[in-house]
Amino acid sequence: MKHLLQTSDLTINDISQILSDAQYFLDGGDWLPKKNIFVANLFFENSTRTKCSFEVAQRRLGLNIIPFEVSTSSVSKGETLYDTVKTLEAIGVNAVVIRHNQDRYFDELAGKSDVSIINAGDGCGHHPTQSLLDLLTIKQEFGSFRGLKVAIIGDIRHSRVARSNADTLVRLGANVVFSGPAEWFNEELLENGSYEAIDSAVETADVVMLLRIQHERHGDKGTKAADDYHQAFGLTIEREKRMKPGSIIMHPAPVNRNVEIADSLVECERSRIFKQMKNGVYIRMAVLKRTIEQMEGSGQNEHINQKWTVAN
Amino acid sequence: MKHLLQTSDLTINDISQILSDAQYFLDGGDWLPKKNIFVANLFFENSTRTKCSFEVAQRRLGLNIIPFEVSTSSVSKGETLYDTVKTLEAIGVNAVVIRHNQDRYFDELAGKSDVSIINAGDGCGHHPTQSLLDLLTIKQEFGSFRGLKVAIIGDIRHSRVARSNADTLVRLGANVVFSGPAEWFNEELLENGSYEAIDSAVETADVVMLLRIQHERHGDKGTKAADDYHQAFGLTIEREKRMKPGSIIMHPAPVNRNVEIADSLVECERSRIFKQMKNGVYIRMAVLKRTIEQMEGSGQNEHINQKWTVAN
Amino acid sequence: MKHLLQTSDLTINDISQILSDAQYFLDGGDWLPKKNIFVANLFFENSTRTKCSFEVAQRRLGLNIIPFEVSTSSVSKGETLYDTVKTLEAIGVNAVVIRHNQDRYFDELAGKSDVSIINAGDGCGHHPTQSLLDLLTIKQEFGSFRGLKVAIIGDIRHSRVARSNADTLVRLGANVVFSGPAEWFNEELLENGSYEAIDSAVETADVVMLLRIQHERHGDKGTKAADDYHQAFGLTIEREKRMKPGSIIMHPAPVNRNVEIADSLVECERSRIFKQMKNGVYIRMAVLKRTIEQMEGSGQNEHINQKWTVAN
Repeated sequence: MKHLLQTSDLTINDISQILSDAQYFLDGGDWLPKKNIFVANLFFENSTRTKCSFEVAQRRLGLNIIPFEVSTSSVSKGETLYDTVKTLEAIGVNAVVIRHNQDRYFDELAGKSDVSIINAGDGCGHHPTQSLLDLLTIKQEFGSFRGLKVAIIGDIRHSRVARSNADTLVRLGANVVFSGPAEWFNEELLENGSYEAIDSAVETADVVMLLRIQHERHGDKGTKAADDYHQAFGLTIEREKRMKPGSIIMHPAPVNRNVEIADSLVECERSRIFKQMKNGVYIRMAVLKRTIEQMEGSGQNEHINQKWTVAN
Repeated sequence: MKHLLQTSDLTINDISQILSDAQYFLDGGDWLPKKNIFVANLFFENSTRTKCSFEVAQRRLGLNIIPFEVSTSSVSKGETLYDTVKTLEAIGVNAVVIRHNQDRYFDELAGKSDVSIINAGDGCGHHPTQSLLDLLTIKQEFGSFRGLKVAIIGDIRHSRVARSNADTLVRLGANVVFSGPAEWFNEELLENGSYEAIDSAVETADVVMLLRIQHERHGDKGTKAADDYHQAFGLTIEREKRMKPGSIIMHPAPVNRNVEIADSLVECERSRIFKQMKNGVYIRMAVLKRTIEQMEGSGQNEHINQKWTVAN
Repeated sequence: MKHLLQTSDLTINDISQILSDAQYFLDGGDWLPKKNIFVANLFFENSTRTKCSFEVAQRRLGLNIIPFEVSTSSVSKGETLYDTVKTLEAIGVNAVVIRHNQDRYFDELAGKSDVSIINAGDGCGHHPTQSLLDLLTIKQEFGSFRGLKVAIIGDIRHSRVARSNADTLVRLGANVVFSGPAEWFNEELLENGSYEAIDSAVETADVVMLLRIQHERHGDKGTKAADDYHQAFGLTIEREKRMKPGSIIMHPAPVNRNVEIADSLVECERSRIFKQMKNGVYIRMAVLKRTIEQMEGSGQNEHINQKWTVAN
């Protein structure tokens, strides 16, 4: 498939191949597309990590990047996402990376355009490249996923990271537990893991994966005062001391320091938070390579579905 | 001339050369400038198609593009367009592509700067590259312009597309008629074509060229409710059925679906709307080539009009 | 030192080397880094000249530029400058150019990150590349700094340009005087130059360096009506006539025409205002070269301070 929309579209083999390609790039390996590839990054929500990470990955692969700022595009004249993507297709863009606040925004695009779509986050839905970079980070640490215990802690209901990770980790043989405020727990997630109290989760997990409190997705309702949250559900200095030997801390960032995690733990010995970001570049190179190879195989964008009469 | 400000500056020969170069690029032809060329795209009005299209064209020609965001430039400290362009000239920019909401903004620039100016739309004035891509689309379809009937329909008074197209089409031998709300008709345009009722215009034209209702250029006054407009002056499903065999539909986009044109017609057999966008990239490559060739011939930007004493 | 934070960190030898490298680039000299270098330009304040100038310089040196827009980054989710820079480091950015409205923003960054920081202006603090380009402009004109009289006139208290220039000019042997509204004079600057009345300063200086009135840094308080200011402290047409033979006019721009300087003098024979901008590109190339050379020597960014276990 030329798109990457959600991790559930990827087989275990697909995931293995992507992790392997990412490690290849990380170890200094090279790969370039056979022809000029044009991409655009459409970020309808703010981002530093994901957007810059894709930009670095695209440059390392020698792609042509067409700048697209939502606020100065025709989107502000009321143009829809569908018409925007069809426009980019018409002017020769081969792939678009999209972050959008609407869940499953891609349902209105896939199958109606020749452009490859790489999902960089849809509302409270999915975030496949984040999940893949988390997997790479865990694999580098433990070699395998089978039997690992991963505790995903925090704002689970609003988290596309939680959703994508629970799906892949369970398929790869890990045990997933969720923790955090009960009212932020999503029943739908139960098929991929049970709920566990914060202290026992932190003490028994191989991977303590904290989630960002997404102030922008829920109003005041349900938001605990930051300090209350930190004491009740955050990784405090005290809780970190009771973590298993060899266990690691992960967080998709941006971190709310002293809310999800104590300030001094962000860069502590157990933390893999910045390593996750570093891995993100190589995962995105691998994902882009996969997309481009499928494009090159299928002759994408060689024609436009309109009659083509060249008169002279 | 090193600038491209309005179509009336172009002779029939100039237009032929640009269309021919565009077709050459479209057919896979290559051309690169002899030296490093720096360009900046100054869009003081929102745009997806035109801006991205120039960005693709510039990358295909190997130009260096200096990003310029109006909102984060010194324009927000009150700097004028003149001082902005002179600044870009001083730091080595060779050509600027400008879209601005002021009619004939270029009058204050041309002749006072060595930078080549390519007009990407001035207020309700001109939009030469849009006109050229429309001409290429028509030429590809019909081979020639002589005797063709082109109906330009809609918000004519506010349309720089109508103005630029009427000028060129008439010079190339086509017959132009205008249609749409009488209060949006501009007397000045009469020299290039007469007014015709919507139904007979649609039924007899070879090219039905619809214009976007520019909500941003007129307030509520004069704006009909969208559905009323569609029934009275839009290309409805019924009207399309009565179009001439072989006739085509064009629109500069972004389209207001079900206002200027029925939703299902945007990508119908007769529509060349996305083909216009595709042609836009090649037209802009041709226009940039022309500008750069004139630059290379004239030794532009080799000096700055200030005393130059290199001491050491 | 791999950073460039303030001119006081540069020895006279450092300054000479940078000016010499800039002149080398200006004369057509080439230099490219040994490996792929990634940079990001973080402008938390508006800019045309400085930002575009760095962008041109970076492209001329073949660097990879990762676009960063403050307004669409995670800074708007509350991420700190420290976490933003650490993020860019993690994804492979080697150097960041920063403009920020906080004085000495770099104190919280330097020594805590492997990324090289080039200061493009901190609050009312420093602006080292502006100072260096001013020095280059003066050197091209007079060959040497010893004994030159430089009058810095205007909004001295809020000016990072005044601060940086007074420091370097005095060290290089020039005499500096300040002029402008007494209430905008900063006692701290007295160590680098005395206060002089506007008319005698203009008449006796070799370099009349005007500063922009920074409307954005002080409210109405202290701002004189534009015309009053122009008559009292601006370079009027009358004052220019009484300038010394061979003396020159400088201004960091953007210029408030008819406030700091009469409109017609901006591009007059004595003005080096646009030449300053031109020199800015070459100074920034020299500063980037210096940073990259130190990076290449020190093996910067080869590792990240977290345990690195590659499992497979």
